[in-house]
Amino acid sequence: MQNLVELIAAKRDGRELSPHQVKRLIESFVSGELADYQMSAFLMAAFLRGMSDVETVALTEAMLESGKVLDLSHIPGIKVDKHSTGGVGDKVSLALVPIVAACGVPVPMVSGRGLGHTGGTLDKLEAIPGFNVNLDTDAFARIIREVGGCMIGQTAEVAPADKRIYALRDVTATVESVPLIVASILSKKLAEGIDALVLDVKVGKGAFMKDLDQARTLASALVRVGTRAGKRVVAVLTRMDAPLGRTIGNALETREAIDVLFGRAPADMTECTYALCAEMLLLGDAAKDMAHARERIAEVIRNGKAAEVMEKMIAAQGGDPGVVRNPGIMASAPHVVPVLAPRSGFVRGIDALEMGLSAVTLGAGRTRADQAVDPAVGIVLDTHLGEKVEKGAPLAHVHVRSVEQARPTLDRILGAFHIDDMADPPRPLVIERIES
Amino acid sequence: MQNLVELIAAKRDGRELSPHQVKRLIESFVSGELADYQMSAFLMAAFLRGMSDVETVALTEAMLESGKVLDLSHIPGIKVDKHSTGGVGDKVSLALVPIVAACGVPVPMVSGRGLGHTGGTLDKLEAIPGFNVNLDTDAFARIIREVGGCMIGQTAEVAPADKRIYALRDVTATVESVPLIVASILSKKLAEGIDALVLDVKVGKGAFMKDLDQARTLASALVRVGTRAGKRVVAVLTRMDAPLGRTIGNALETREAIDVLFGRAPADMTECTYALCAEMLLLGDAAKDMAHARERIAEVIRNGKAAEVMEKMIAAQGGDPGVVRNPGIMASAPHVVPVLAPRSGFVRGIDALEMGLSAVTLGAGRTRADQAVDPAVGIVLDTHLGEKVEKGAPLAHVHVRSVEQARPTLDRILGAFHIDDMADPPRPLVIERIES
Repeated sequence: MQNLVELIAAKRDGRELSPHQVKRLIESFVSGELADYQMSAFLMAAFLRGMSDVETVALTEAMLESGKVLDLSHIPGIKVDKHSTGGVGDKVSLALVPIVAACGVPVPMVSGRGLGHTGGTLDKLEAIPGFNVNLDTDAFARIIREVGGCMIGQTAEVAPADKRIYALRDVTATVESVPLIVASILSKKLAEGIDALVLDVKVGKGAFMKDLDQARTLASALVRVGTRAGKRVVAVLTRMDAPLGRTIGNALETREAIDVLFGRAPADMTECTYALCAEMLLLGDAAKDMAHARERIAEVIRNGKAAEVMEKMIAAQGGDPGVVRNPGIMASAPHVVPVLAPRSGFVRGIDALEMGLSAVTLGAGRTRADQAVDPAVGIVLDTHLGEKVEKGAPLAHVHVRSVEQARPTLDRILGAFHIDDMADPPRPLVIERIES
Repeated sequence: MQNLVELIAAKRDGRELSPHQVKRLIESFVSGELADYQMSAFLMAAFLRGMSDVETVALTEAMLESGKVLDLSHIPGIKVDKHSTGGVGDKVSLALVPIVAACGVPVPMVSGRGLGHTGGTLDKLEAIPGFNVNLDTDAFARIIREVGGCMIGQTAEVAPADKRIYALRDVTATVESVPLIVASILSKKLAEGIDALVLDVKVGKGAFMKDLDQARTLASALVRVGTRAGKRVVAVLTRMDAPLGRTIGNALETREAIDVLFGRAPADMTECTYALCAEMLLLGDAAKDMAHARERIAEVIRNGKAAEVMEKMIAAQGGDPGVVRNPGIMASAPHVVPVLAPRSGFVRGIDALEMGLSAVTLGAGRTRADQAVDPAVGIVLDTHLGEKVEKGAPLAHVHVRSVEQARPTLDRILGAFHIDDMADPPRPLVIERIES
């Protein structure tokens, strides 16, 4: 016990703990020997003093080992997953899994739910009638083997130390710490039994990381620590100032993700999906270079294989595969209220944070983890960055259960649009990539 | 609630909290709104980022106001107490209270128990047969009024927030923080209803503060914050490299404190008592300058008034006042084992920490708060700093229940003595005084 207090004191004084000491700390937290109030003191010390890569690897592995670690080694091929730090309108995972799987790379994906202004993949999947994200690990492994990909929620057995530590960080002002974020993300992802991981680190108003330097620091740390932990890891920094694609809200976003599989999605959404899928194909040894990877992706879209994998995965997970050809079977909102342009001009900005928060107000997201979401409601953008708009033309439409429900959000949505006399030159969605 | 997390975040980022924010934090901790794990994160942030004097005053007052605050305003005169940061052989309080009271300054003293290598005044008082340190506040006030001084233990109603926070600090490596120490000391002392306070900040091997700079920093902060809180405060830095006086152990120390009242105590013990008493007389407006204060102290010793006050106080607190004239009525150990000098020379050092820990091993102190102590056992020094010793002559005697009990400590006690060919020049016990 005194020993444990000395470990807290060592971090407090800025000393580097050995991997053994980091593991001792986490193990004693899991066993109950180290109390919550001691862990939170350690977390604050780690927040202010930082942690080395060696310490972060040890923390990642200790949290990983606190729970069940999937063994997918019986499935042939390099298992690759993708993780996004979260954004507004980010429905990439739903298109990415079938595309990458169709290219022959197995994708074991464990996703989360939306919280605050950012959406969650599980909420989007559940807009598909019957889709079950709560599979056990046997079913998960079987579907990956048979279909090539499977998308589920995190089970209680995965990295329980991370869950408890995250809950503490949330209420002790210790969330925004790079090493703690890295260990939290990687411990959960490594527990999936993956061999490689692509990280989509979002940057901008609608992202967790508001500026490029912060995002770059996090991305580099994720790549370094993930590589030290024995995985192939690449990070891609992508813009999240404006919402990704033209939809925010669960069924609306799922429909747009399906559009990617048929080559008819908005340009930014398509580009983000391609960029991340291509990295996964490279890590999965399924393409010889970036150009080849993009060709292969285009091919599985053109020949319908990606859409077929999507149908098979949905069916395997209890959902109605008819949604792929007919997205209209998902819930839709009975009322659609336009937000009209107050002036003519060009769209120079769409504040992703304001849009995300508006969608939460509509019921598409949640502010507390125990809230339910409404799959039908949301926002569809009629105009996007750089586009010309005439006064009185619709900037967006709000999909709602009642016209009344739309009212409190209309001004906020309108205020999120920045219309000016001139458009900005287009900026590439992918800012940079970081590899080890 | 989010509000509270933002207060933790503000301290984490090194911002100064307003007095209102500090009080909100403590009040919500007391009410249960702020959890232990949140307080410990705040404490670590405060440890690493520091707290301003304004914040420390607010913290002191918030902890003070979490419990009962004594009102002694109905007792005439300036009520003055003394607090020591703790040392080995420090029995000054037992002589100081009757001396200062005999000089007409009321002394309300709330003391603690020994923990680790440092002794505690309550344990020493309880070596007096019948002495009761657990009086209620009415009896406390009555005895101060009638006798001039009273010495009790801290009641559960005093500064409960400090008790809970101290318990957290102890297990979260956040003890050694100057503002947290200052607020802890002052909140308890201010709750006694005092008007003025003399702080004995001990410096050296046997003290909490090992070096002079640390001690000076703590003493200055105590004086500044106490003064801002509206009290007269003076701090005295005193040496604690070697034990104070010639005794360590409860009944042995009480006897030596009584010796001060008759002018027959060792020089260092007498000097420490005089120096602190003189400061109290000055703060209590009972002397016009230091020389006058020392004259007054010498007088109440010479004319027996200090010893009389001691007898009255002991009687008022249920103890046998006969102990003042006949200390032999206290428990004494049946066996006395000498520690002999391995060589001739001069005593250049006596390690107070090692001596204190040896006394704990004998049963005179405790390592856990719930342990009982044996009043009879302890160590008596036959030689002190600067004294000449012949090979084979006793350096010290160990007072024990059995010879067997002494054995494990003999080498340690011997090792605490540094004997050399030459003596160091004598150094004054009082290093410096700090006033506002």
